[in-house]
Amino acid sequence: MKRIALLGSTGSIGTQTLEVVRAHPSSFTIEALAAGQNAEKIAAQVAEFQPKVISVADDKTREKLKQLLDQPPEIFTGAEGLTAVSTAPDADFVMNAVIGSVGLAPTLEAMKCGKTIGIANKETLVTAGHLVMEAARTYNVDLLPVDSEHSAIFQCLQGSSASDVSRLILTASGGTFRDKARADLEGVTVEDALKHPNWSMGAKITIDSATMMNKGLEVIEAHWLFDIPYDQIDVVLHRESIVHSFVEYKDGSMICELGHPDMRQPIQYALTYPKRLEFAEKKKLNLWETGALHFEKMDQHRFHALKLAYDAGREGGSMPTVLNAANEAAVAMFLDGRISFLAIEEAIEAALNRHERITAPDLATIQAVDEETRAYVNRLMK
Amino acid sequence: MKRIALLGSTGSIGTQTLEVVRAHPSSFTIEALAAGQNAEKIAAQVAEFQPKVISVADDKTREKLKQLLDQPPEIFTGAEGLTAVSTAPDADFVMNAVIGSVGLAPTLEAMKCGKTIGIANKETLVTAGHLVMEAARTYNVDLLPVDSEHSAIFQCLQGSSASDVSRLILTASGGTFRDKARADLEGVTVEDALKHPNWSMGAKITIDSATMMNKGLEVIEAHWLFDIPYDQIDVVLHRESIVHSFVEYKDGSMICELGHPDMRQPIQYALTYPKRLEFAEKKKLNLWETGALHFEKMDQHRFHALKLAYDAGREGGSMPTVLNAANEAAVAMFLDGRISFLAIEEAIEAALNRHERITAPDLATIQAVDEETRAYVNRLMK
Repeated sequence: MKRIALLGSTGSIGTQTLEVVRAHPSSFTIEALAAGQNAEKIAAQVAEFQPKVISVADDKTREKLKQLLDQPPEIFTGAEGLTAVSTAPDADFVMNAVIGSVGLAPTLEAMKCGKTIGIANKETLVTAGHLVMEAARTYNVDLLPVDSEHSAIFQCLQGSSASDVSRLILTASGGTFRDKARADLEGVTVEDALKHPNWSMGAKITIDSATMMNKGLEVIEAHWLFDIPYDQIDVVLHRESIVHSFVEYKDGSMICELGHPDMRQPIQYALTYPKRLEFAEKKKLNLWETGALHFEKMDQHRFHALKLAYDAGREGGSMPTVLNAANEAAVAMFLDGRISFLAIEEAIEAALNRHERITAPDLATIQAVDEETRAYVNRLMK
Repeated sequence: MKRIALLGSTGSIGTQTLEVVRAHPSSFTIEALAAGQNAEKIAAQVAEFQPKVISVADDKTREKLKQLLDQPPEIFTGAEGLTAVSTAPDADFVMNAVIGSVGLAPTLEAMKCGKTIGIANKETLVTAGHLVMEAARTYNVDLLPVDSEHSAIFQCLQGSSASDVSRLILTASGGTFRDKARADLEGVTVEDALKHPNWSMGAKITIDSATMMNKGLEVIEAHWLFDIPYDQIDVVLHRESIVHSFVEYKDGSMICELGHPDMRQPIQYALTYPKRLEFAEKKKLNLWETGALHFEKMDQHRFHALKLAYDAGREGGSMPTVLNAANEAAVAMFLDGRISFLAIEEAIEAALNRHERITAPDLATIQAVDEETRAYVNRLMK
């Protein structure tokens, strides 16, 4: 029985994690749960999964939740609450499925407690990859990828030696606007941007997919998770999202993982690793029904955000922190209808250009740079 | 340094094995070598690789070879010679790259000596899979696949548990006549049949690809190598031969291996397993250059030989021995211009229909059934 602390239980990955847990009641239990402001949804989850530790976004949500529960346990809030959940004493696995760099501190704390981490929150690795990977080594904990691309790579690396890898190739669906030229992106709306062709995901990641920043964040995440230089990480456009990523070995052989696009599969793999379990609603992938898998070159001029991410990753230090914070701030402003779609990239580029790189930033520095960058983007774009 | 005994050094897999050895002189050496009747080619190989043990097909070739060598060592011949090579005292790896069930006895003898086997000779496993796999267990030796499909599956299984596998899917290029209907196969010539669209291989396997018997033999080989029931082995038509095969796991995730079609890659992997080495003439596979990978359903009516192989495999006992022996005899007759292309299948079906299945045949029984079947096909078709 794996006891799971779930950060971000009402989000897309959170609810899908609960679906996997529900399908395998003898394998998994929810020990602790942290969510945002949707009190009704949280109450239903608490009633069903009976977690021992609960956290919500703020006091207002806490009060609402108390009203909805019969015997409310202690309910934590905010950043402290996230860490109370991630370090819940009896949990052995933390699924980090929050959105944004807010996931960083509770992840580091959970690692100190020796808990296995399922990392669906790529911003944690983008903003402070060196700290997270150092903690994984220091406390000897597994950091298991949940993003479909990184789960694919992780699966393809099993039984192999890292020194035999010559290249990682991430697949990209191309996102909502893959068939639009840059010039056509001028007037796109939030509603347009939220229609992802293949994956059912949260709003932030769907916008990140449309800008291609999502793939940029994934390149940085892959760099840290698999300790591979940026020059050995490629991206290929693959419209069907059936191949989830490739590993190329030095003898020229490539291994890839594929399947129908369904986030519950990589979630479940992280939870069952190194074993596998039957997948509840398995839809057999018969490639003769699919017919063809298509691959196209990724155009870094068309997808400028990808270039920004590669550049920030290569520069290292505090640059990826700036990239991520600027992106989070700008996407939030776009979702609020305050800036245009193309202004997301402009904000990120402006934030990167003005920042003086700090080498090997510690946690406090990262948090300061993160806040400062968000404030800058908000000033710049208002 | 791995000391290799190479059975079938002048064939397609044999010469490509020597290319791999030539490219990695500090990793591999040729300890022993068995070949057929091409004395000039054998002499050149002996001069270059200086094997300590040599075997050729017959006395006539031995005498020719002696003339060509400065200081000829003892030269063995025939079936005994194959075993002298496969059991050469200082060899630790036997590459079985001969054609046909003649590879069986020397492989079993090498296993008794505890040598690792690279198995490029699928007929060995088809004709007596139960004996070979039992020997692998008894003498605790690795049996490493060299066929590109089985090497792919083997690579995809690394780090995984066999109990997690739900299906193997072999890819098939479709062979020389993939775009011809059955009715169009009536008058095809040997020359037509030898033009394989993707792979550079020997004559026998190229004909087997054209009849699709090659894929049938591979299904049986996969059954034995990976201990998977026939109902969990599928074949998919994949014209590009870039994906070399798939493993499907019970959680719905599939892993496949891919690369440019080049037999030296799986040969090298068998020689370096579990590590990898740089591949001498690596042609990077960039899928955006390939553009698309296509998959089609395999039609067992169009490719009747595949159905015969599945049926023989499922029946088990001595049936696969008959399937293989009848196929070897009929393909030889086709290559000699003595029977038509479609008569290959007819001969195999007739041999299977008349044979009374023997359960769990021992080596002597297999050899007797093999001889008897060849004689029958020769009588039937003359």
